Amino acid sequence: MKVERKPKDVAVLGAGSWGTALAMVLADNGHHTRLWGHNPVQIEEINRSQTNQKYLPNISLPKLVIGYSDLSEAINEVETIILAVPTKAIREVLKKIVQFRKEPLTIVHVSKGIEPDTLLRISEMIEEEMPLGLLKDIVVLSGPSHAEEVSLRHPTTVTVSAKNMEAAEQIQDLFINQNFRVYTNPDLVGVEIGGALKNIIALAAGISDGLGYGDNAKAALITRGLAEIARLGAKMGARPLTFSGLTGIGDLIVTCTSVHSRNWRAGNMLGKGHNLEEVLDKMGMVVEGVRTTKAAYQLAEKYDVKMPITTALYGILFSGIEPKDAVDGLMKRRKTHEMEDLADILSLNSAN
Amino acid sequence: MKVERKPKDVAVLGAGSWGTALAMVLADNGHHTRLWGHNPVQIEEINRSQTNQKYLPNISLPKLVIGYSDLSEAINEVETIILAVPTKAIREVLKKIVQFRKEPLTIVHVSKGIEPDTLLRISEMIEEEMPLGLLKDIVVLSGPSHAEEVSLRHPTTVTVSAKNMEAAEQIQDLFINQNFRVYTNPDLVGVEIGGALKNIIALAAGISDGLGYGDNAKAALITRGLAEIARLGAKMGARPLTFSGLTGIGDLIVTCTSVHSRNWRAGNMLGKGHNLEEVLDKMGMVVEGVRTTKAAYQLAEKYDVKMPITTALYGILFSGIEPKDAVDGLMKRRKTHEMEDLADILSLNSAN
Repeated sequence: MKVERKPKDVAVLGAGSWGTALAMVLADNGHHTRLWGHNPVQIEEINRSQTNQKYLPNISLPKLVIGYSDLSEAINEVETIILAVPTKAIREVLKKIVQFRKEPLTIVHVSKGIEPDTLLRISEMIEEEMPLGLLKDIVVLSGPSHAEEVSLRHPTTVTVSAKNMEAAEQIQDLFINQNFRVYTNPDLVGVEIGGALKNIIALAAGISDGLGYGDNAKAALITRGLAEIARLGAKMGARPLTFSGLTGIGDLIVTCTSVHSRNWRAGNMLGKGHNLEEVLDKMGMVVEGVRTTKAAYQLAEKYDVKMPITTALYGILFSGIEPKDAVDGLMKRRKTHEMEDLADILSLNSAN
Repeated sequence: MKVERKPKDVAVLGAGSWGTALAMVLADNGHHTRLWGHNPVQIEEINRSQTNQKYLPNISLPKLVIGYSDLSEAINEVETIILAVPTKAIREVLKKIVQFRKEPLTIVHVSKGIEPDTLLRISEMIEEEMPLGLLKDIVVLSGPSHAEEVSLRHPTTVTVSAKNMEAAEQIQDLFINQNFRVYTNPDLVGVEIGGALKNIIALAAGISDGLGYGDNAKAALITRGLAEIARLGAKMGARPLTFSGLTGIGDLIVTCTSVHSRNWRAGNMLGKGHNLEEVLDKMGMVVEGVRTTKAAYQLAEKYDVKMPITTALYGILFSGIEPKDAVDGLMKRRKTHEMEDLADILSLNSAN
């Protein structure tokens, strides 16, 4: 992949595994990459030994990745910021950007979630926090991408989207290379919702595996889960086809079939009989899918969309329903036409 | 699931793992199920010990499954035949049915493939072989379903389709129960093509794994593979959405993520550097995806559809292209919009 490229200064905010892996891609492409993290010890390690052992063990970072522990320095005079912090830290980091920054910039977010209660997508949160004069464009980058594999330069594909497609194409040019293939998709809403809601299905897939059900049941859950996400997404303004793409089914496959997935692991423990409190206790970290299940349940009510898998999961997580009863309930629903709901939305006519 | 059911006599032709598992479902539903196989020793085992050890080890068959080694007896006076023989044996079995049978019947086929050279779907092959007066309806049953899991009564979902949807609904009623959920879908072409072409993608996924690439690459191959199958399917008269359903992505997930999949295993060996001849030699059985790759390559030419993954696979299988070069070639294609081709076909307008 030959792309004419002028080296740029780019800031990546968030030195977890995904932020660090993306910083490596940018550095591989010749960009001066400022990787900001809030932990000075970690940043010192990055600059001293070109490693980030906690998040990407045994990976050597390119020389063009420079660690920053001072946010105002990291974002000074860059045109583009990659926002790679957990969903719940986003508003706080944005407030700091507003505080330190005077010139407009493009924000690329790479997180996956829906804000509980406000039910906002991440680009909407960014719009809320950033004064118009400070914001050029918002771009989302999403897709099936374990950070570890990106850091090993294994072939990976992702999608970028934005309201302004020229901005999305600029970010495509920034990242694309031989190992990291970047597609564009104009459906910002669909790309953001797909990334967020796949964590629900990963939880459900984990539960199914935890119950000892097999690949047939898991494939059914993933497929029907995708259908209900697409139904909700369409009501929210997304294009149903986006859910058949990299940020929909692609990301879902990676999440649901990998034992590394935090959401799958949490679901697996639920399926084996632990309750939510025990699971969150044992995991010791945020399980994004739990928050997202609540948000999706609220969205389903708001938009009046049937989401049987989400509803079953909500029952397991928050109403003490036994996982086995919930799955059996799904299997016993009335006979249905597979396509009835989606076909309604799309008004597709049978082509044969 | 309570379905009003009158016990029927049903014939299942083909006593491999899938035919036997489906016979178990029918027997669980109270039907007198005649399981025909060409090997008298195997049929004797079924009737003597209610087992079929070679294909479903350690599974006890319900008493209502009766083995038949005489085809004319097996199909005598039944209304419905389940055709569960390998694709390449279908015409031969159909010719025998024509020979022995005088009254019209419904044929349910559960095989996956496209006939090489004629490029016919299986329902089209059945139409060719059966005189009109002998044929009531043709129904296809397909979906994500390892036979072993069905025989263990693990939750499983499948789809039935037919030109005459009343016939599909009758077959839905015949099979549906608490463990085996049956959906209907009016898109016969899409259901048949999805089932056949997923084996190509399973081969490609195996190659990617054999090359040591990771989950990101595999998810990309599955997702982009689905997109090109949907593009071809749409040109052949299928509804693109069907490929997002159980017989498309659902079946693809089961096939691509299971080490039990014959096609995945063959691809894996190709990725590790063996050539096709060695692979087929070592497998010692039909690898349906190899035949299907040739058929799909011919279909892509006939319908003038771009199928980069199928083309790359064809190159590996039949033109001696190195797997690594083929995958790298896929990653280096020009930048693209993810949705451009599909959106063309559907003429969907952005909803946001």
